[in-house]
Amino acid sequence: MAARGIFITFEGIDGSGKSTQARMLADLLRQAGHDVMLTREPGGSPGAEDIRRLVLEGDPDRWSAETEILLFTAARRDHLEKTIEPALAAGKVVISDRFVDSTRLYQGITRGDLRGVVDQLHMMMIGREADLTFVIDMDPGTGLARARSRQGGEERFEDFGEGLQAQLRDGFLELAAEFPARCKVIDGDRDPQVVAAEIAGIVRAHLG
Amino acid sequence: MAARGIFITFEGIDGSGKSTQARMLADLLRQAGHDVMLTREPGGSPGAEDIRRLVLEGDPDRWSAETEILLFTAARRDHLEKTIEPALAAGKVVISDRFVDSTRLYQGITRGDLRGVVDQLHMMMIGREADLTFVIDMDPGTGLARARSRQGGEERFEDFGEGLQAQLRDGFLELAAEFPARCKVIDGDRDPQVVAAEIAGIVRAHLG
Repeated sequence: MAARGIFITFEGIDGSGKSTQARMLADLLRQAGHDVMLTREPGGSPGAEDIRRLVLEGDPDRWSAETEILLFTAARRDHLEKTIEPALAAGKVVISDRFVDSTRLYQGITRGDLRGVVDQLHMMMIGREADLTFVIDMDPGTGLARARSRQGGEERFEDFGEGLQAQLRDGFLELAAEFPARCKVIDGDRDPQVVAAEIAGIVRAHLG
Repeated sequence: MAARGIFITFEGIDGSGKSTQARMLADLLRQAGHDVMLTREPGGSPGAEDIRRLVLEGDPDRWSAETEILLFTAARRDHLEKTIEPALAAGKVVISDRFVDSTRLYQGITRGDLRGVVDQLHMMMIGREADLTFVIDMDPGTGLARARSRQGGEERFEDFGEGLQAQLRDGFLELAAEFPARCKVIDGDRDPQVVAAEIAGIVRAHLG
């Protein structure tokens, strides 16, 4: 039996550079000889990717916040069962670009006061938190400009405007304070190589 | 303001005739001058129909029971918001071919001991029970022969075999005993016109 792996998540506002950092960490750890599974949410397993398409495509008010939370939790359950848990059981380092903290923020706050619903559903149907979460912190204006400059598949969620980006940034910082044992806030407003080096240092310390 | 409508559901094993009876009741009530909305689950709203396709198509073990319950609850939430609640608010008689009792039975029992999960999710995200539920009771062997003789879209759920059909029948009868105020058990092993007449009588009594 392999030793149980470690589960690392990246969170932050759109344009914060978390996807880039997740990839860079995966590369660094692979170079160091670790067996790494890089994944993302929403999605990360064939079924969850199908649910992702259902949620992200179509009219912006296609789903209520409550239905959206149920769909994201269904996708997360599939992602957990089919991708994350098997990889952890095989001793891999699992790195996920977003996990439940994004739902806590986006669905729990920006679409109504539903944080309690998100947490209850998570406790009941998922039950797992990451071992280590990097909250990539970023000036909301800079993040928004970056997010707007690319064409992604998350249009439904990206064009919130700067006021909401600022609210989300505060929300991520508060979430990090709420889970201090697993959450590390990283200043993302620096050269990506510098950010990556700091993250790699923390992961090395964690891996012992 | 119209008086608030009434919400009637039909439940029972596959091949019990519940869809036929739902249609016959809708016709009878329309002839009597009622404004009727006939709907079904899984599905019943454009979003819920999309989720239905996701659940019913593909490999039988595509989803775990837990993910399936989340997807059905998401579909039900959408169905409730977009179809059932607006129709009830407009004073209509809403007749649904299946509702949460089917999830209590099929996902709660046949796919593991998950009745508690189904009930908790229902309480948290749906919160509504029907005003009147007709449980169409049927000999499991007869029901199975009928279900097998047609081509439906629910292949994933229909071919359980007679042992499971018998277990589901018992489950529906127990459920009816658990909710005696709203559940009426109807002997479905008779001429459909006779069954329809009995149901119409109960509904007329209920409508006052």
